[in-house]
Amino acid sequence: MAALRVLGVDPGLTRCGVGVVDIAADRGATLVHVSVIRTDPATPLEQRVLAIAEGVAALLDEHAPHVVALERVFAQNNVRTVMGTAQASGVVLSAAAARGLAVALHTPSEVKAAVTGHGGADKKQVTAMVQRILRLDAPPTPADAADALALAICHGWRRGAVAPAGAEGSDRLTPAQRAWRAAEKSAAAPRVER
Amino acid sequence: MAALRVLGVDPGLTRCGVGVVDIAADRGATLVHVSVIRTDPATPLEQRVLAIAEGVAALLDEHAPHVVALERVFAQNNVRTVMGTAQASGVVLSAAAARGLAVALHTPSEVKAAVTGHGGADKKQVTAMVQRILRLDAPPTPADAADALALAICHGWRRGAVAPAGAEGSDRLTPAQRAWRAAEKSAAAPRVER
Repeated sequence: MAALRVLGVDPGLTRCGVGVVDIAADRGATLVHVSVIRTDPATPLEQRVLAIAEGVAALLDEHAPHVVALERVFAQNNVRTVMGTAQASGVVLSAAAARGLAVALHTPSEVKAAVTGHGGADKKQVTAMVQRILRLDAPPTPADAADALALAICHGWRRGAVAPAGAEGSDRLTPAQRAWRAAEKSAAAPRVER
Repeated sequence: MAALRVLGVDPGLTRCGVGVVDIAADRGATLVHVSVIRTDPATPLEQRVLAIAEGVAALLDEHAPHVVALERVFAQNNVRTVMGTAQASGVVLSAAAARGLAVALHTPSEVKAAVTGHGGADKKQVTAMVQRILRLDAPPTPADAADALALAICHGWRRGAVAPAGAEGSDRLTPAQRAWRAAEKSAAAPRVER
């Protein structure tokens, strides 16, 4: 089965993390691209949002992912930045839909649970697990893009979880992957919200 | 002096009000276009946001406004709808910037103060004043687009307020316009926030 290519986006106006990961049928994950789209807070808002839109559009066209995984933003979060984050999310949603792609929203705790086994993991733990999952020699850089990679992995694995049972032999998993799968199963039942 | 053409946008995912108004140097305002872009809540989020983006882009291309006035959304508002509203705002910002247009943000109370003279005016009062200002025979329809027209008028008048003093003869104002100007001056000092 062909790998599922996922673009993960950790939305933000000042820093928008983007990561592209290929997820194989055996849950093996391969890094394709990782970067952060940055905009200057001194730039007019409309130009900042446009820069995010153009940056994401360029990634979609270059890497042609099958699906986009976007962090779900809550209005209860940091009130000072949440509106900008939601505005950035808007142009990511639009850019994906313009290319016929679906966008799945995942909460930060769902992402943490998927890659580390517990929803309360800190940033350092998430980064370390992303490094291991992607078999990288060093933590992914820029550091603030690790969440975007985690989002992509989370979505790819969850999508795998709804594939026909028995399609993946557990003997094809590495010991670490078996541990993560067990951890994921033991985590509180996650929801994929739209 | 040529009229300033303003696109006012009252952002929302289910209903996004859009109104185009020409504001003359004497503050006279003329209706160019008014409508509501609607999306079905049952449609996937990314397709809804794209529909807003495409609808606004079509308006910008058809009516070629000089500037866009967008309602400023606060995270403190209705938590259930505010994220969708901010996502819709994001694609409006992006569509404007892609055409080299600036976007001005105005709060609801600024808009109400500009068109009615007091920031606490209700929807009915705003609609009635928009009808008078635009010299319409009936309240603008669809009714939920009146706020978009009020936004456009608000922005045009504020922009006029910073033009060189003395450029407009007060004898060119209608009695109603003089009354509104007086009311506007008596309102609490408004801020144009970005």
